[in-house]
Amino acid sequence: MSFSSISHLVCPKCKSTYDDTIVNQLCICGSPLLVEYDLDSLKGKKKNEVINTKRHDLWRYHQLLPVRNPAHVVSLGEGLTPIIPMSNIGAKIGIPQLFMKDEGLVPTGSFKARGAAVGVSKAKELGIKQLAMPTNGNAGAAWSLYSARAGIDSYIIMPVDAPPITRKEVAVSGAHLYLVNGLISDAGKIVGELVKDQGFYDASTLKEPYRIEGKKTMGYELLEQFEDSIPDVILYPTGGGVGLIGIYKAIKEWQELGWIKGNKIPRLVAVQAEGCAPIVKAWQERKTESVFWENSETAAFGINVPKAIGDFLVLDALYQTDGCAIAVTEEDIKKVHRETAQIEGAFICPEGAATFAAAATLRENGWIKEGETVVCLNTGQGIKYPELVETDPPVLERGDSASKIAVSSVLK
Amino acid sequence: MSFSSISHLVCPKCKSTYDDTIVNQLCICGSPLLVEYDLDSLKGKKKNEVINTKRHDLWRYHQLLPVRNPAHVVSLGEGLTPIIPMSNIGAKIGIPQLFMKDEGLVPTGSFKARGAAVGVSKAKELGIKQLAMPTNGNAGAAWSLYSARAGIDSYIIMPVDAPPITRKEVAVSGAHLYLVNGLISDAGKIVGELVKDQGFYDASTLKEPYRIEGKKTMGYELLEQFEDSIPDVILYPTGGGVGLIGIYKAIKEWQELGWIKGNKIPRLVAVQAEGCAPIVKAWQERKTESVFWENSETAAFGINVPKAIGDFLVLDALYQTDGCAIAVTEEDIKKVHRETAQIEGAFICPEGAATFAAAATLRENGWIKEGETVVCLNTGQGIKYPELVETDPPVLERGDSASKIAVSSVLK
Repeated sequence: MSFSSISHLVCPKCKSTYDDTIVNQLCICGSPLLVEYDLDSLKGKKKNEVINTKRHDLWRYHQLLPVRNPAHVVSLGEGLTPIIPMSNIGAKIGIPQLFMKDEGLVPTGSFKARGAAVGVSKAKELGIKQLAMPTNGNAGAAWSLYSARAGIDSYIIMPVDAPPITRKEVAVSGAHLYLVNGLISDAGKIVGELVKDQGFYDASTLKEPYRIEGKKTMGYELLEQFEDSIPDVILYPTGGGVGLIGIYKAIKEWQELGWIKGNKIPRLVAVQAEGCAPIVKAWQERKTESVFWENSETAAFGINVPKAIGDFLVLDALYQTDGCAIAVTEEDIKKVHRETAQIEGAFICPEGAATFAAAATLRENGWIKEGETVVCLNTGQGIKYPELVETDPPVLERGDSASKIAVSSVLK
Repeated sequence: MSFSSISHLVCPKCKSTYDDTIVNQLCICGSPLLVEYDLDSLKGKKKNEVINTKRHDLWRYHQLLPVRNPAHVVSLGEGLTPIIPMSNIGAKIGIPQLFMKDEGLVPTGSFKARGAAVGVSKAKELGIKQLAMPTNGNAGAAWSLYSARAGIDSYIIMPVDAPPITRKEVAVSGAHLYLVNGLISDAGKIVGELVKDQGFYDASTLKEPYRIEGKKTMGYELLEQFEDSIPDVILYPTGGGVGLIGIYKAIKEWQELGWIKGNKIPRLVAVQAEGCAPIVKAWQERKTESVFWENSETAAFGINVPKAIGDFLVLDALYQTDGCAIAVTEEDIKKVHRETAQIEGAFICPEGAATFAAAATLRENGWIKEGETVVCLNTGQGIKYPELVETDPPVLERGDSASKIAVSSVLK
């Protein structure tokens, strides 16, 4: 059996097909391209005959990933992140079966590593030597480090307001780092020009077809980890939305393979911030595409994406799974961010916090029903956003007495 | 079969035994206590009959961990970190079979999560409500967050020079955080007094017997992951040395159980910085204990420990495995720190970088022989030390042309 069952690329809009063994970016019609596999050749096989269960990373699914030759795999051990019961938050918001899939536990500390691992591996397979991308920070960190491992030169442009730590990650990788006084959409325009002028590979969200294949492994993992009790609801913080598109693609592929017990499909929820909610607006209006969100703003920087190129795919996934889209306030993000640390011991990213805030609202308004199993995607580590935690601890001197420590009489 | 085969506690110095179902700290003779298991009850069983291979975290080894009741397990999905080939660095330093075990991929971003997970779980089992500890940062981050999850109140004292991000982690957990103008040893003195005055549980390194049990799972994992090709050499950045003691304990336990193929034992290497090398000095002089290192200093803050309470156990592990101790320069740490990012895509912590610098020296002087398999422990993520990366990227303006980007004509 070959290492990958990849067959070709297809345009979800105009249905044109493309060859994956040569470089392709967008479809001639302007739409992102998706990877198709020869699923027929896998039908009738059991899941564990196809999954390489000895690998504890996302390459256990290599048969359903686009890299044809294992020698091209560029890996730092990403994937198979844990499912963590969030019983304390769950008790508070009336969802006893509340879980977090913690995407902080991957190289570079955010779920962007999945897309980068598979995207860079395929770029290596295609012989790419230089790539460029705009980023809100975490994707740039991941792509620049994986590119370094692959020996690919990367050009990364991010807003000056992107999380400062992600600058350090890009810089340490040896990538060409530029900031822009603006949003990711402004960075994107400059990258577009650079790509055109220099003939670089465009690694922008969905402008190459393989990042989504890495992201979809979150879906495979959820289906594998919850094997006998597929969740009712999955909440995902939605900026570019690639993860949500990927999870939906994963579900459809396993459905076709007959690998989902009872053929149950989770309802997918796109979570956005009130200061940048184009998908929510489109969903509320039952539109198939979103409109550019003017003057977007949120502390959850990863979801500050005013117009996602894959918006139509995100919305389709919401409609097809009876899901929904919901916006949360900055206050709620901040409150939940602190609370998950204090009562669950989980220091998550603000984007992840948004999903828990959304779960609380959806339970309160009855959209999430009593007894349902709910999974929130935490897309990165809290330590990537140290500026969100204020601290001014007392300073003791060498030799000070312990009596200077205020002992709390109130126990937890 | 019970959840744990724990039998009792024993003093490695005076051989006194203690009951693990009540609170114990140090032995009456002043030595740390170690956990003993009823290994006889497991003899004859195959590894995979005892390991719960369905769990992708360190609790897969619950039978050889000290928590008796699974309800007391406090977990955030820690463990089973990846083994990453470091072929590019390896080629450079003449060790083609060079690997990194990446302990950055755990909650709180450092290997301290292992000790905290098991230590806090056992503290919960023992009914502890308040604990205190001195820390160089990462242990405090891990223990405060796991304590928050367990509902235990924690008091954390760290040097003002400890990595600033670890302050944020402790603060966000809701713990009682204090800084001290001094070293971890100064923090330790204040904690000692606090513990005495208030009757708190002392969670200082090796002053409770269970942290080491969490750390030893690094050893189990190495033995499991390298099943058919046990490494010749394992390098470990050594401050308190608990991980090294733990790895050695893991090896001895599996040896006794007959689970190590060919009964091969890796040589263990304690890596320190030239500015704080008490274990190296003791090893060079063939001593069984180390001497307090005056005016210690290193950018690898986690190994700035002038005198480790478990020094005699570290040295014993080195002597028993034909290992060694080696100090590296600040310049080498800095150089390797950058290099692993640029040619391997791995943004590691300075302590981890020290182990690669040490491997290079040991290969050069012949201590590591041609063709040997070598594993370096990276104990945490680079993003926890952003101050080590200087960056001053050019800033573009919204609408700027791509011609402002300097395109490199030199490819990687």
